[in-house]
Amino acid sequence: MKGFFSPKSVAVVGATANKIKGGYHIFNNLVSYYSDRVYPVNPNYTEIDGHKVYPSVSELPEIVELVIIFTPAKSIPAIVEECASLGIKRVQIQAAGFAETGDGGKRLADRVMKIAGENGMRIWGPNCTGSVNSDNLFFAPFMPAQDLGDKLTKGNVSIVTQTGMLAAGFLIQTLESNYFGIDKAAAIGNKMDVDEVDILEYLAGEDSTEIVLMYLESINRGREFLEVAERLKGKKAIVLLKGGRSPVAVNAALSHTGSLAGDEGLITGALAQAGVARVYGFIEMVNVGRALSLLPTWEGGKRVGIITISGGAGIVTADLLNDRGIDVPELTEETTARLQEMFPPWMPPKNPVDIWPTMEIRGINEALEMVVPVVMADENIDAVILLPFASPITENIDTGVFTRAMVEAKKPILTWMFGFVPSFENFKKNFEGAGVPVFTELNQIVSVVSALRDLNR
Amino acid sequence: MKGFFSPKSVAVVGATANKIKGGYHIFNNLVSYYSDRVYPVNPNYTEIDGHKVYPSVSELPEIVELVIIFTPAKSIPAIVEECASLGIKRVQIQAAGFAETGDGGKRLADRVMKIAGENGMRIWGPNCTGSVNSDNLFFAPFMPAQDLGDKLTKGNVSIVTQTGMLAAGFLIQTLESNYFGIDKAAAIGNKMDVDEVDILEYLAGEDSTEIVLMYLESINRGREFLEVAERLKGKKAIVLLKGGRSPVAVNAALSHTGSLAGDEGLITGALAQAGVARVYGFIEMVNVGRALSLLPTWEGGKRVGIITISGGAGIVTADLLNDRGIDVPELTEETTARLQEMFPPWMPPKNPVDIWPTMEIRGINEALEMVVPVVMADENIDAVILLPFASPITENIDTGVFTRAMVEAKKPILTWMFGFVPSFENFKKNFEGAGVPVFTELNQIVSVVSALRDLNR
Repeated sequence: MKGFFSPKSVAVVGATANKIKGGYHIFNNLVSYYSDRVYPVNPNYTEIDGHKVYPSVSELPEIVELVIIFTPAKSIPAIVEECASLGIKRVQIQAAGFAETGDGGKRLADRVMKIAGENGMRIWGPNCTGSVNSDNLFFAPFMPAQDLGDKLTKGNVSIVTQTGMLAAGFLIQTLESNYFGIDKAAAIGNKMDVDEVDILEYLAGEDSTEIVLMYLESINRGREFLEVAERLKGKKAIVLLKGGRSPVAVNAALSHTGSLAGDEGLITGALAQAGVARVYGFIEMVNVGRALSLLPTWEGGKRVGIITISGGAGIVTADLLNDRGIDVPELTEETTARLQEMFPPWMPPKNPVDIWPTMEIRGINEALEMVVPVVMADENIDAVILLPFASPITENIDTGVFTRAMVEAKKPILTWMFGFVPSFENFKKNFEGAGVPVFTELNQIVSVVSALRDLNR
Repeated sequence: MKGFFSPKSVAVVGATANKIKGGYHIFNNLVSYYSDRVYPVNPNYTEIDGHKVYPSVSELPEIVELVIIFTPAKSIPAIVEECASLGIKRVQIQAAGFAETGDGGKRLADRVMKIAGENGMRIWGPNCTGSVNSDNLFFAPFMPAQDLGDKLTKGNVSIVTQTGMLAAGFLIQTLESNYFGIDKAAAIGNKMDVDEVDILEYLAGEDSTEIVLMYLESINRGREFLEVAERLKGKKAIVLLKGGRSPVAVNAALSHTGSLAGDEGLITGALAQAGVARVYGFIEMVNVGRALSLLPTWEGGKRVGIITISGGAGIVTADLLNDRGIDVPELTEETTARLQEMFPPWMPPKNPVDIWPTMEIRGINEALEMVVPVVMADENIDAVILLPFASPITENIDTGVFTRAMVEAKKPILTWMFGFVPSFENFKKNFEGAGVPVFTELNQIVSVVSALRDLNR
């Protein structure tokens, strides 16, 4: 797989000077950021942006390590054949028009796979945006990526997507929003050959990847997938958004990426056992990835302590946790006794822990400094959700207490940002700087807790 | 109830010059924006910000229409007694310390209610932020509300909340974020007397309120609540976030607002029959309110047509709709035939409708102009979810076609904002200007569709 993310040299077949076409962008992205050993191939051009264009792969100055193809589907078998005859082992087909379009496409795909099989080649795609590697700014996708070099922040999250346009949009939005730093991105499209198991095996060996976010419409090699997942359990986090859980969506997945989505019930049980975290939306996947990349610990997620300055927020959070099967247990007698010392006598401490009265007496800094470590130390609790208000006070609160409590107790803290909007920017910086992920919606927090629970199953 | 939202004169008992106290803010908010006939009452002060302070309600220059109290709970029965002796009929207790704090508080509450009952008075609260009316800038809450006059935008949404701090935070965030224009806001706290039914009855008579967002921890008078809801069905939208759906939360609600949350199963069925839309989080409630205030029609919600430029987004949306029991039905033969004329021959049209190939041939404007009205006209479909990408192209797209289609078909269109972040601001303006609510998460769209389904039950 390494050659798909760090090829010594690469040809772009279907490169063009027409700047609204994908073939232009693949070439331009690679030559701008990656390497000089990127060769445009197109019999109809002699130069693109001052770079010499070659009529065919055979006429390139070297045997390239990777060939990326962005030409009509019917032209592709002949190009793959030519690559095979040159001994080229890696082809990435970003163009669409294969299995997802019915019988004609299926025949073309079969021809490509026959050539690949006979010649020991690996085929990536078709119908995809290909591979990205932030280590070396290898950026293959066919979409325009202005200022990519500035926006691709190195981090511990890798993204695997089985879809074309969405992968592009997802990557663009992630780069622009800087949700988290990226290690690798792999859009594997119709998975004619290279599939999620290949990518996961590759990422298993990449220490720089600690979190793998996956959008899949099918899992073709279920046993192998579960095997790698089991092996990575406790080492890397796999977060899966599985499209095609409902009959209509299964049917749509078939025409979208030619995927047979498989039996949802079977998949769900097996994935849970393998410690794969499940999410159900794209932004939910982003939020879980962001939280995991920020948190100093991934323990916990089964039994939550809620610390709140609003009774109502605590109640709604408890309801949402209950909807996902997550406990909000009673505190131990010891915790209750310790909290009672800090609480007004008329307020018996219980979970959710309402700190408003204590805060009125002692101020929020002192109240949190007293209450948070006590709740974090409770043996019934393995994660804490903190529900303050964003305000000129909380935006400047001492958040070091949270970091210390998380590291000491090996339990995560997650928080909600709600209230005075002008304080949001500083509130977020202050809490996330201390490793406490901040969310604007309670259900986003519950999603992260649920993911942690899945990872620790 | 009118006297709680538009009193001719109002006394603030517990007004203080101490600017970090709630008693200061109640007085300051009212005197700054509402009227000169706002009287501070406090035996320990002679003036606040240049306004004369009165030692007691009896010594005010007039018999006020409303008395707001922000003093310790134990002092309140005597103040209510004094009001009763003066013939004052309306008291709003914003202070806490009653039923939610156990037996002592319960006895105080009983005394207040006895006085009120014997004298035909109505008691609002305690433990709440009281009433807001954007018609006349009557703003009673005990929180600091700088620049309130600029931020309180008049609109057709009223908010009813049964919680103290959260109501404050919710209102602050709503004012700052300008999610929608507000008509009235009522935070009713522990509901010693005035409850959600009283408020709903009042709002039923206010033409300026078309949407009522409610956060409740209990519904005390279930039969009356359902009766008003039934009466408003099809006229005003009631959107309910009901805290206390889970055992832990029911218990927490008891200590928070002294609420017995009732049997969740019974409540759910009855509310559904009465056409009340259910939501499960605060931001979800805001999003539904925002969508209803933007949409030109509230029909539909049971059978959704998805129009997408990304197969993956269509698939995940279909899954999320299915999770909430909403259909993504097959298109009629007529619709399929009409779409096939516009689609490439290898692409049989079906729901979700993937317009990417058509768009590649015709451009997005023409593709949407052709496809949207056809799908909207389908008799199997009563709402459309549109999944484009936000980009420099879509931010300037002609959105008039959507407004025309919604008005003609009496079916709503909702859309997703995903992709190129620098286009988001204009994309949102463009679509929402045409009455198409824009959301950044697919599950937010599904929540709105679910609310529409509830309203049309």
